[in-house]
Amino acid sequence: MKPTPEILQRLKDAVGPKGFVDGESDMAPYLAERRELYRGRAAAVVRPASVGEVSAVMRIAHEAGVHVVPQGGNTGLVGGQVPDESGEEIVLSLSRMNAVRGIDVENNTLTVDAGVTLAAAQEAAREADRLFPLSLASEGSCQIGGNLSTNAGGTQVLRYGNARDLVLGLEVVMANGDVWDGLTGLRKDNTGYDLKQIFLGSEGTLGIITGAVLKLFPRPLSVETAFAAVPGVEAAVKLLRVADGLSGGQVSTFELVPRIGVEFVTRHIEGASDPLADQYPWYVLIEMTAGMEDARLAETMEAALAEGLDQGLVSDAALARSETQRADFWRLREALSDVQRAEGGSIKHDVSVPVSKMADFIARASEAVSARLPGVRVVAFGHIGDGNVHFNLSQPVGMDRAAFLALWGEMNAIVHGIVREMGGSISAEHGVGRLKRDEIAATKSPVEMAAMRALKQALDPKGILNPGKVL
Amino acid sequence: MKPTPEILQRLKDAVGPKGFVDGESDMAPYLAERRELYRGRAAAVVRPASVGEVSAVMRIAHEAGVHVVPQGGNTGLVGGQVPDESGEEIVLSLSRMNAVRGIDVENNTLTVDAGVTLAAAQEAAREADRLFPLSLASEGSCQIGGNLSTNAGGTQVLRYGNARDLVLGLEVVMANGDVWDGLTGLRKDNTGYDLKQIFLGSEGTLGIITGAVLKLFPRPLSVETAFAAVPGVEAAVKLLRVADGLSGGQVSTFELVPRIGVEFVTRHIEGASDPLADQYPWYVLIEMTAGMEDARLAETMEAALAEGLDQGLVSDAALARSETQRADFWRLREALSDVQRAEGGSIKHDVSVPVSKMADFIARASEAVSARLPGVRVVAFGHIGDGNVHFNLSQPVGMDRAAFLALWGEMNAIVHGIVREMGGSISAEHGVGRLKRDEIAATKSPVEMAAMRALKQALDPKGILNPGKVL
Repeated sequence: MKPTPEILQRLKDAVGPKGFVDGESDMAPYLAERRELYRGRAAAVVRPASVGEVSAVMRIAHEAGVHVVPQGGNTGLVGGQVPDESGEEIVLSLSRMNAVRGIDVENNTLTVDAGVTLAAAQEAAREADRLFPLSLASEGSCQIGGNLSTNAGGTQVLRYGNARDLVLGLEVVMANGDVWDGLTGLRKDNTGYDLKQIFLGSEGTLGIITGAVLKLFPRPLSVETAFAAVPGVEAAVKLLRVADGLSGGQVSTFELVPRIGVEFVTRHIEGASDPLADQYPWYVLIEMTAGMEDARLAETMEAALAEGLDQGLVSDAALARSETQRADFWRLREALSDVQRAEGGSIKHDVSVPVSKMADFIARASEAVSARLPGVRVVAFGHIGDGNVHFNLSQPVGMDRAAFLALWGEMNAIVHGIVREMGGSISAEHGVGRLKRDEIAATKSPVEMAAMRALKQALDPKGILNPGKVL
Repeated sequence: MKPTPEILQRLKDAVGPKGFVDGESDMAPYLAERRELYRGRAAAVVRPASVGEVSAVMRIAHEAGVHVVPQGGNTGLVGGQVPDESGEEIVLSLSRMNAVRGIDVENNTLTVDAGVTLAAAQEAAREADRLFPLSLASEGSCQIGGNLSTNAGGTQVLRYGNARDLVLGLEVVMANGDVWDGLTGLRKDNTGYDLKQIFLGSEGTLGIITGAVLKLFPRPLSVETAFAAVPGVEAAVKLLRVADGLSGGQVSTFELVPRIGVEFVTRHIEGASDPLADQYPWYVLIEMTAGMEDARLAETMEAALAEGLDQGLVSDAALARSETQRADFWRLREALSDVQRAEGGSIKHDVSVPVSKMADFIARASEAVSARLPGVRVVAFGHIGDGNVHFNLSQPVGMDRAAFLALWGEMNAIVHGIVREMGGSISAEHGVGRLKRDEIAATKSPVEMAAMRALKQALDPKGILNPGKVL
């Protein structure tokens, strides 16, 4: 329900004047996501500075039945962090809870407030000669709390796992304001249900993450990067297994890049060039890391590529011989999202299938979208090692941009239909939020939906936490 | 409630005569665990041969309010798999569901029935030139379903994680007989709550795991094993960080062995010998693995030990020069549980603390138990890299065995009290079952217990799944 003036005053008292925002223009940055795809309204934005203040806010909201939308760095892509249009919800921003609480070098753990940015967490690890491996495009502004609530992915999942895998403990404020202190730094604890798992990835619908104990890793001292041409997606997957086997799990990045992606990047980005003399249909960016400076990692990379050549999995390859060259190789992967803009409208899909079905998926989905719209340009790229591909479509050359974008829903239906037939996921990284809520409800099994609703009912019986998101 | 003859007949019809056991002597193997610490009674044992039959059993049990105790290989150490003494429960054994359903080499996944033994799962992986890294003493008879329901640990957790971390998908029969098919082989899927996490480690109290998609890894081609003397536990932890850093995460085993353990093993096991010329207070068994045959892993191990010597973390060390020597080193660790028996009674603790607090914990706990019982012999050993130590006590020489064992509860209270003060876990690997249920309820926070009870209520509202276990 809409908070009364009295409730708003109680909320203001709970967080203090610095933590309470209700002017239209002051609230504006919290009410829309950056691409303006989602814009809502709110009765107020509260910015608690401590777990005690978060708890106080939730006790008031719970008593009054006020809906609360938790928000981190506001970088989510599915509208999960944006309030609805009613103006009755309050946004709870974690951004003032931004302290690094502590680092335990011998335990390889870092304890942080939820509002610490990902970049700040990485930096705290680096200062202690450790690695916090989560790495995302938005790392300068996204926050740990948001990363964990959405189980963020990124470019190092292959080696270190998703955000869920990088957490040992959580502090969570429950819907009724109770605080669960689960900030353990333990690697093994079988004393009952692993509660943290329930809050990780649940997009703020079951509780509000206010703090976390994160896993740290040895900082790699050697890095080798290669850009390899492969005859096809299936060969790329086989090459991954060769590289993974030979290196004993030292492959940290294995990213697919299509020929059209190299063309887009070299066309639109000054100084970008194709590292290989000839043209090939597909490429992979491979990175291996090791702990020793003289770990002869280059030999391992070369051995993997040589084996790939022998088995017909590699057509040509270049090894980065300098940091500049390494950056050049990475740019061919990292610029792919941006350069699509220069080629007109694009329709995006963030999907996964079993790694073994990746080639088949890309072939089938490419054929299906081309049958619907001849001339559509498939730009399929990304985390092939995780079975996760950004199956993006650039508009046919010369087509009207708006007419192309009007096909968004239809193209989604075609691609997601194939994903489902292959046992895949229609949201590999980005979550459900508002964007995919209806599609999830329509396509998951009734048993799974019933279990999800039972969990929601168990932990948030009044339904005040991020309503209308996920389920 | 006690199943009526009519209910028992319906259960028999559901699983067929081969799947129904009700004679006293035929039921006996299912009613007690191997050490006879727990022995119960049952109205019947059902042994369904398919997920459909498990579902049928649960529908009947749910309708009638009959309590069901799921059981795998019956190797659990906390009584979780044993029925109570009422004779009203039924045991549901998964042992007839023992098919390997499939292997997807390029996806690095293995799909199995819950009743497949851990050894059979390892073997299926090996045949495909892959590694399934879960490794336990009971692997010949324990089953995957039990391993996952209890989130089993073992000797390779340091590198590959606990059982929970080795699962991509589950098939679960819910309390009401509904079947959740979550047998995905996806490495990334953010379409809602990660339901499998709720069933992993919940000891059969929330649903019955009937099948799983397991993660596979490259099979290591090089192995190096060292047995190193260290001046103390703190030095051991620091050495782990050195070895982990230098090898870039290739340490797969790092196990603590005390001097008294070496003495017990060399005294009681024929052919066992101390690999080092002098005596030292503590040792670590270190193993590194790599994917290439010529990976120069020996150099990495030697570099880590040399750095350890330089920093005063290593007093002496031996590298295994043959498979025989490697087996000898491992025996010094693996025989530790058994040889304690030859030294009289032993009181056991399966605890964890943050790795950084391990030295302090062992010192404090050793002092406290010695103060209570002068002459008690502390045998603290195990997975120091995970912060998990088996803090076992052997009786003083010459003390009456029964008198010593009568101190079990008192010693537990002393040790667990220190564990709790240090933010540790009183059951790092073995779970809660019946053994630690009361202690958990008495010591976890009310918020955590309330959340656990809410989950139980949400997924098993009639309380028919493994009642009296965990909570």
